[in-house]
Order: sequence, then C-alpha cells, then structure tokens
Amino acid sequence: MKRIAIDMDEVMADTFQYCLDLYNAEFNLSLTPDCFHGHPLFEIIEPAHRPHVRSYFDRHEFFAGIHVMEGALEVVRELHRHYELFVVSAAMEVPSSFVAKFDWLRQHFPFIPASNIVFCGTKGIVSADYLIDDNVRQLNAFAGEGILFTAPHNMNETRFRRVNNWMEVRALFLPEE
Amino acid sequence: MKRIAIDMDEVMADTFQYCLDLYNAEFNLSLTPDCFHGHPLFEIIEPAHRPHVRSYFDRHEFFAGIHVMEGALEVVRELHRHYELFVVSAAMEVPSSFVAKFDWLRQHFPFIPASNIVFCGTKGIVSADYLIDDNVRQLNAFAGEGILFTAPHNMNETRFRRVNNWMEVRALFLPEE
Repeated sequence: MKRIAIDMDEVMADTFQYCLDLYNAEFNLSLTPDCFHGHPLFEIIEPAHRPHVRSYFDRHEFFAGIHVMEGALEVVRELHRHYELFVVSAAMEVPSSFVAKFDWLRQHFPFIPASNIVFCGTKGIVSADYLIDDNVRQLNAFAGEGILFTAPHNMNETRFRRVNNWMEVRALFLPEE
Repeated sequence: MKRIAIDMDEVMADTFQYCLDLYNAEFNLSLTPDCFHGHPLFEIIEPAHRPHVRSYFDRHEFFAGIHVMEGALEVVRELHRHYELFVVSAAMEVPSSFVAKFDWLRQHFPFIPASNIVFCGTKGIVSADYLIDDNVRQLNAFAGEGILFTAPHNMNETRFRRVNNWMEVRALFLPEE
C-alpha cells in the first residue's frame, strides 16, 4: 500500500481563509485571497498589524474555528481505503499550537488514528511516497514525490505537479473511482 | 551526512528513573530498575496504582523534573558535528505532553533546532539512516537500521544491535574520536 503524507494547514484546514476573515473583521478591511497572489499572508498585511495576527496562532480557539477545506473530508476518507495516510504538520514553528492542532484533527478526521499524526519542522524527515503540501520549501525537502496544493501564496510556482482542490486530488490518486 | 534519529524518553531523558523515584516516594516503596527486568513499568507496579502513575505524564512539572540520561548531552553534542540529528518522540500517545517535551528538549539540548524535533506515533514514518530507541516495536516499524538502547524493559531482546549507554553510542558512531 502506497503512503501519502498530507499537510494540515492550507490543505486539510482552511487556515488562511479563517485568518483572513478574522483580520478583515477586526480591522474593518475587505481583503480577498486574490490580494495575496504569489505572496505569503504576512508579506501583504500591514506591518503594524503583523504581531497581532501572529498571535492568532497562539490561541486554541483560533484553531477550533478553522473550517475543513472544501472536499477534504470526503476525499481523505476515500484515500484512507486505498492508501496509508499520515497527516504531517510543521507544528514546531508554533509550539503553542500542538494541542489545538491535534484536537482539530481528532475532531474533524477521527478515522485517522493519532499514531498517523506527525508534528515536525522540516518534512525532509518524512518517509512517504507522496506529500501533498502548499509549501514549496517543504516539498523541496521531501524525498518522495511532492504534489503542490494550490494556495494564494504559491500561485506562481511551476516546479511541482499541482492540484487546485480536493477534486483534483481524487482524480490524481483515485482515477478509477 | 548520515542522519540519526534519536528517541527522547529512556534514551536522552531518564524518564523511567524519575517516574520510579516519584512512585517509590509517594507509596513508600523501594523498587529498583532490576525489579523491571524484561517488563514495562506498568506491568510491575500495583494495578491499583497504575492510573495515578499514568497521570504523572499529564503534568508539565513531571517532564520538567526529568534528568538528562548520563552521557547523553556530551555525546549528542559530538554526534551533532558529524551527523544530521533528529529527536523523534512518540508523543502522540500522550498529547498533553507535547509542550512539556518540547520545552525539555529546548532547555537541555538547545543546539538541536526546533526544526529537528519530531512528534509522531509510529516511527515507521521517519526517514533516517539510524534510529536509537529503547522500544522494539518502534525499531521494527523503522525502515533504517535500528539500534536498541538498553532499558530495564528490553533486557531480553536479541533482535537489534544493542548499546548499553551513551559511551557505547559514541564508540559505535564516532569510533575514531
């Protein structure tokens, strides 16, 4: 059985959109994902607002509010029948998020056992056939085949096979379903 | 540069001894590591005491009190110059321990960057040349070469190359130093 490692934020969890919604609401703005084309979140928002927005990620209730990415639940459940799945999150960047991320995954994807959740820094340490991730740095570090999941910040990337949404993940990994 | 993954509890951290010291003190006992020859901690202690002892692992201050395994600091520092090191802990078994384990590692081994700390369930997901671990189940799951670090519970194991202490780790990985 082939093994797929799946990133959490921006792939399974719509973290960017939730963060943007909070930011817009708090600062009375109306930024859309298009405003971030090719740029990370923190490059576009006002420098003076950055520490405050970073602090979102220290709060358990922030993670609790994040929605599952459209289509992720259904497709991950299908993949689970044909592949060995691991969720691999670069959680070491925000140690205060460990429990919140773990709780989110157990709540929304209870069929993925805790033993198949990995918190790491670099995904070069991950042994899997595929990694689905929005982060090019992590795909570069990974030794298997990297699949780039579209997010506003990675729109200009051309180095990896790209999937734009979970329907395209299904088409790639379950072509006969 | 070859990559070595190193387990935390019972290898870098003398978790067993600290747990035993607390247990002996609380219940006015005088168990020694020899009492556990070939058996996990929870097989030997009184069934009625097990939930209480398990609760130690939910407390941040428990991890904060654990000593570094004798010789670990010096040898890990030396290995760090010749190998790519990752600390890989099966922390998913006790999610409440994430932050405490992370803080312990950052305090005692500050030269290991956060990016090289991994919390997982099974170590089959770890891509490394070597894994030094006291847990035979994890060594079996690992695809590289497993090195068994002696602990009371694994005394009867014969399936892996064994190191009895950190001096033997040094002799194995840095024979010319």
